Amino acid sequence: MPSSTQDSPDAAAVETYLRDLQTRICDALSAADGKSFAADQWRKPDDAPLRGNGITRILEGGALFERAGVGFSLVAGDQLPPSASAQRPELAGRSFRAMGVSLVLHPRNPYIPTVHMNVRMFLAEKPGGEPVWWFGGGFDLTPYYVFEDDARSWHAAARDACAPSGAAVYPRLKKHCDDYFYLKHRNETRGIGGLFFDDWSEGGFDASFALQRQVGDAFLPAYLAIVGRRRDTPYGERERHWQLMRRGRYVEFNLVFDRGTLFGLQSGGRTESILMSMPPLASWQYDHQPEAGSAEAQLARYLKPREWL
Amino acid sequence: MPSSTQDSPDAAAVETYLRDLQTRICDALSAADGKSFAADQWRKPDDAPLRGNGITRILEGGALFERAGVGFSLVAGDQLPPSASAQRPELAGRSFRAMGVSLVLHPRNPYIPTVHMNVRMFLAEKPGGEPVWWFGGGFDLTPYYVFEDDARSWHAAARDACAPSGAAVYPRLKKHCDDYFYLKHRNETRGIGGLFFDDWSEGGFDASFALQRQVGDAFLPAYLAIVGRRRDTPYGERERHWQLMRRGRYVEFNLVFDRGTLFGLQSGGRTESILMSMPPLASWQYDHQPEAGSAEAQLARYLKPREWL
Repeated sequence: MPSSTQDSPDAAAVETYLRDLQTRICDALSAADGKSFAADQWRKPDDAPLRGNGITRILEGGALFERAGVGFSLVAGDQLPPSASAQRPELAGRSFRAMGVSLVLHPRNPYIPTVHMNVRMFLAEKPGGEPVWWFGGGFDLTPYYVFEDDARSWHAAARDACAPSGAAVYPRLKKHCDDYFYLKHRNETRGIGGLFFDDWSEGGFDASFALQRQVGDAFLPAYLAIVGRRRDTPYGERERHWQLMRRGRYVEFNLVFDRGTLFGLQSGGRTESILMSMPPLASWQYDHQPEAGSAEAQLARYLKPREWL
Repeated sequence: MPSSTQDSPDAAAVETYLRDLQTRICDALSAADGKSFAADQWRKPDDAPLRGNGITRILEGGALFERAGVGFSLVAGDQLPPSASAQRPELAGRSFRAMGVSLVLHPRNPYIPTVHMNVRMFLAEKPGGEPVWWFGGGFDLTPYYVFEDDARSWHAAARDACAPSGAAVYPRLKKHCDDYFYLKHRNETRGIGGLFFDDWSEGGFDASFALQRQVGDAFLPAYLAIVGRRRDTPYGERERHWQLMRRGRYVEFNLVFDRGTLFGLQSGGRTESILMSMPPLASWQYDHQPEAGSAEAQLARYLKPREWL
């Protein structure tokens, strides 16, 4: 539970980076899809429990993406909610600021994985008034069909993103990701993982902000490489059905376990921006079991922590 | 927060009633649909965190019901989970038994409402070893299009079910239902409500068990009357799209707020039996707003507490 006041954080630089990251990501995804993102600029009134503003960018009904949401938000509140402060009990109920970019992409083709990426920064004050800040973020991949090539290239990109911060960082963040994206009631991980970090201020502001940029910048090339390999794979009703069933699990994770979602809903955040992570269509069927030996049945083997590199 | 040890509970009589109720309901729904329910008899091992057994009955892909789940379960655990004991802090972590019938019906035709019914009984022991028991249950209706006739007949049935327990009971249980089935992040109720009670032992065991039976028995005729009026109403893509969007809200309620769902998932219950409440297909779309003045736009007017009788 690192926390730091070693050097003063440059929140303006973080904001500039995050706004630019959102633009770069949307431009690249839009080029890959052929359809543009709509932009919804929103502002919460100054007397709302959670003040702030943001830009929610959404692409729905594209050729590549059935639904893609990429949000930037900058919020401030008087009461840090429990979901954000579980590891910082001394900050519970204190005023805070937070900013971040968050995305979830739901591709149409079931051979392309669903993906999530988030980078965020929190600023708060200890009871004595001493400022405190930390970074968080990561990315994780949720395939419907696992291709070992894709899993390895994804984790290699994750490892390379962490490398400038030290060789020990990737294994830590990879394990944290496996632990976090876990559906207890299903006894399975959400997918094949990636990176997750929180409460991060190791080495001071410059080093921590550098890690955030490394992670944020690594996302696009890592994901687009997989999209490029899978987007022309033909699929039919069978793969579509499987994709919708598995998207149901994605919904279960986000609404039951995800700290960011709960943080947003608990703190009075903007519901449509928070729930842009939901899939466009999802399904549930009683005790659905893929046929033994099928490609779909293989997935279960991968929904547990595993060393990919 | 009533709690009672006035007279000794006849758990065997409750179990008999509940098992019979499940059978009667499935028989009637199956006759209305034309398709039979499958029955899945399950048992949790004696060393599981939540021991017990149950019969999950499911009808999927019927003419009337796209998915209908009617479950009976009888469970025992060593640690009453927080979701069951919020109002009984002295019982948190104590051993308990619980049994109940729970159902959620997702009809195919968007003019027929989705419906939920549950009747349950808990037995536990106070720290000194004194036995304590209580009943809970209710039913609530979630229409996609509101017909005032249906809403009035539904609430009249709810009022009549409560009447033998006293004229004051319906208004209390109706209000509790409005309060409980509320999506805070959407600022709307789940539907037009009905009845909800919990921690109920008023008047002793006989009187409380009688209320449970009145509620359990009232469900079928109340719902089937609405099904009869709406099942032949033609619908198209537009109504289907609206139904799928609204089912997304149903998912949000069940996974974010519903105490029974959280109780089950927290206590290590049987996931497939708990999540039989999920719709077969649900959708999300960014900031979806029905066209002003449309039949769909009317729904919002009804998603707040209202006196129907």
